[in-house]
Amino acid sequence: MVEITRPRGTRDIGPEDMRYRREIERRMRSVCEVFGYEEVLTPTFEHADLFRIKSGDEVLEEMYVFRDKGGRELALRPEITASVMRYYREEMKRRAKPIKLYYFENCFRYERPQSGRYREFWQLGVELIGTSRAEAVAEVISLAMECLRSIPLQNVLLRVGHIGMLRNALSLLGVGEKEQSEILRMIDKGDIESALDKISSLCCATNKIKQFSEMLECDDLSALRMHAENIGLSMQELNKLEVVASLLKSMGVDWKLDMSIARGLDYYSGVVFEIDSPILGAEKQICGGGEYNLAAISGEDVPTVGFALGFDRIVLAAKKEGVSIDGRKTTTYIIPLSDEYIGICMGMAMNIRRAGIVCHVDLMGRGLRKALSHASTIGVDYCIIIGKREVDRGEVVLRDMRSGVQKNVPFSEITQRLMIQSE
Amino acid sequence: MVEITRPRGTRDIGPEDMRYRREIERRMRSVCEVFGYEEVLTPTFEHADLFRIKSGDEVLEEMYVFRDKGGRELALRPEITASVMRYYREEMKRRAKPIKLYYFENCFRYERPQSGRYREFWQLGVELIGTSRAEAVAEVISLAMECLRSIPLQNVLLRVGHIGMLRNALSLLGVGEKEQSEILRMIDKGDIESALDKISSLCCATNKIKQFSEMLECDDLSALRMHAENIGLSMQELNKLEVVASLLKSMGVDWKLDMSIARGLDYYSGVVFEIDSPILGAEKQICGGGEYNLAAISGEDVPTVGFALGFDRIVLAAKKEGVSIDGRKTTTYIIPLSDEYIGICMGMAMNIRRAGIVCHVDLMGRGLRKALSHASTIGVDYCIIIGKREVDRGEVVLRDMRSGVQKNVPFSEITQRLMIQSE
Repeated sequence: MVEITRPRGTRDIGPEDMRYRREIERRMRSVCEVFGYEEVLTPTFEHADLFRIKSGDEVLEEMYVFRDKGGRELALRPEITASVMRYYREEMKRRAKPIKLYYFENCFRYERPQSGRYREFWQLGVELIGTSRAEAVAEVISLAMECLRSIPLQNVLLRVGHIGMLRNALSLLGVGEKEQSEILRMIDKGDIESALDKISSLCCATNKIKQFSEMLECDDLSALRMHAENIGLSMQELNKLEVVASLLKSMGVDWKLDMSIARGLDYYSGVVFEIDSPILGAEKQICGGGEYNLAAISGEDVPTVGFALGFDRIVLAAKKEGVSIDGRKTTTYIIPLSDEYIGICMGMAMNIRRAGIVCHVDLMGRGLRKALSHASTIGVDYCIIIGKREVDRGEVVLRDMRSGVQKNVPFSEITQRLMIQSE
Repeated sequence: MVEITRPRGTRDIGPEDMRYRREIERRMRSVCEVFGYEEVLTPTFEHADLFRIKSGDEVLEEMYVFRDKGGRELALRPEITASVMRYYREEMKRRAKPIKLYYFENCFRYERPQSGRYREFWQLGVELIGTSRAEAVAEVISLAMECLRSIPLQNVLLRVGHIGMLRNALSLLGVGEKEQSEILRMIDKGDIESALDKISSLCCATNKIKQFSEMLECDDLSALRMHAENIGLSMQELNKLEVVASLLKSMGVDWKLDMSIARGLDYYSGVVFEIDSPILGAEKQICGGGEYNLAAISGEDVPTVGFALGFDRIVLAAKKEGVSIDGRKTTTYIIPLSDEYIGICMGMAMNIRRAGIVCHVDLMGRGLRKALSHASTIGVDYCIIIGKREVDRGEVVLRDMRSGVQKNVPFSEITQRLMIQSE
């Protein structure tokens, strides 16, 4: 017999991990909701062209692409933004702006499996559609940070830059649009040297290149203003970045200027940001976002700000930081001393469950000793034992599994007794 | 420009629907948890062979099958049971039995789109691994019913049968295993006539065929006992079915005998059940399950009981029955009267949100009149207005959007005031 395994680069997530993940998810969702963002859900696969339009042919190499029986080329989504903007065009254009959406969905990436990166992974993200004013940008950034604070992750680093200023500076250096994207991609990968070499090969104004290089490395706003003036940039973008910075301060959000954020994707247009969880080492980036314009998908020039949080890495960071989730609910376990009492036990179990208390019934016909041992193995708080004597008296034996203390409790009082114990 | 649409047979789910779906999901999850079942998550795609082994080549016709770059044949999962049993073999064999698992995942089916059936759909299901004693079967059935009760769906019909008895009866009629599956498939589709014709073509004992036909149609247990005796069936299966029936009664679960449930899938072995929501008309079946044995996947003979609930149909039924979900949280909206107060507004918004109250800030620079009108459009409960006079006095204007009444409230008291109002 051939044993079928799980596909390479995927994983099964077991009960303990799922409990942890769902709680982290719940905390972040609550934040999206108190910010007034509402959940949407899009299909797991899309026409491959959707992602081709958004990110170019390159992206197809890292996607699961397949044809359906009608010959249509489909792809498992590598990210959600394109789907949300398609959905916007198809159904949400007429809604009052801004439209505040969030999603929590799985995405797919066909690459070599490596630590913390799976071929199927989860993203929690936000799209704010219809405005990219400074307060909109600041809100979206603060929302990403608040999601992380709610977990709570203690150690995160927010870096904010402005890709529009980089593009404008490159234009002033005489670099054409196509080369700009190539250079920004190098910068995004942290390869500043190659980026500067490439600029040098296109432009001979050495002092301008130096100014550009200094702008990339600059880490405070007043220095940035000076470099921007030297390069001859218009002050509009910088002014907006300064307002965003001051709004972040009003909300108590710490941040660091990082003009080398280039986000590697052509549709980002203005303020961009990334968040790191340094405890994760090389794979530390847990969020990326910024202002963008996806008119090619949304069908109109609509300013948008968004981000995507890498849920799997965040869960990893939370574990590394020792984030604990609320303890398990009180758990009970009913043991019938013979088969004829199973019906009574199952009826009682239903009442206990309806009071919100976890209740198992022995389903293996184990008998008292083995059932107690099983209950202990799975971490039960209270066992309820029912045999002939108990039924005759209308009582159960309630055993506290930590202390071993047993008490007789009338049938009619057992649920209430457990509710009091579990408070 | 080509406008990319959503793929055929899929859907985008908007905020109102998502809120409804998540609440229905939450209610059903809580039930699984108080029954002591724990969530697992499996990959969206599996090796296609996994489903081929479970359900035969036929199933491939209705699946999205594709090859990855390594030439491996993968499939978007059409259901979850096969994945859970694979996961059991790979990682859970050593856990204490019974293993009580539930899942809530999306599945894919490549068929003509029709009302209530999408190519991507959600299932909430349960697998109880390691026992199929009568109390295990009764627990699983009662869990499915309790999920529906928790929504609450008022009008559901539970039908219980026994596919093992059908197989045994067919064997006694001299029908071979291969033909049995064919006949059971006809019965499953409700085509009793063709099933009986097929049996007639294989066996000439007319009176036995009549007894089988009567057994299929029989609707109470004592009549079933009589038919079973006439056919010459062993009483073991019937006795178990009777115990299951009596346990369901102990738990207050109503049911109806339906011996024509054949579940169309070869691996079901004993008690089987289906639940209908008659309000849905032709597409009324919302649950199917029973005892099964998937040794070909799990690698060992391990008795299992499970079910899958069709989440999308359940949501439809809940809407048709008029199930309402809890009202929205109190929603607030802060309006800065000029740009210079945006920072104060955003800081205040953060405090309000941290108290669990939904808070919007105008992100469009709307000005008072337009902002109030927008707040009214999106159904805000309270607006908070902040301008020069308010900042000078350390106050805000709090406007109740239903009554139109405005009050001045000190900065320091606004969050608490809203918390009291929202109780």
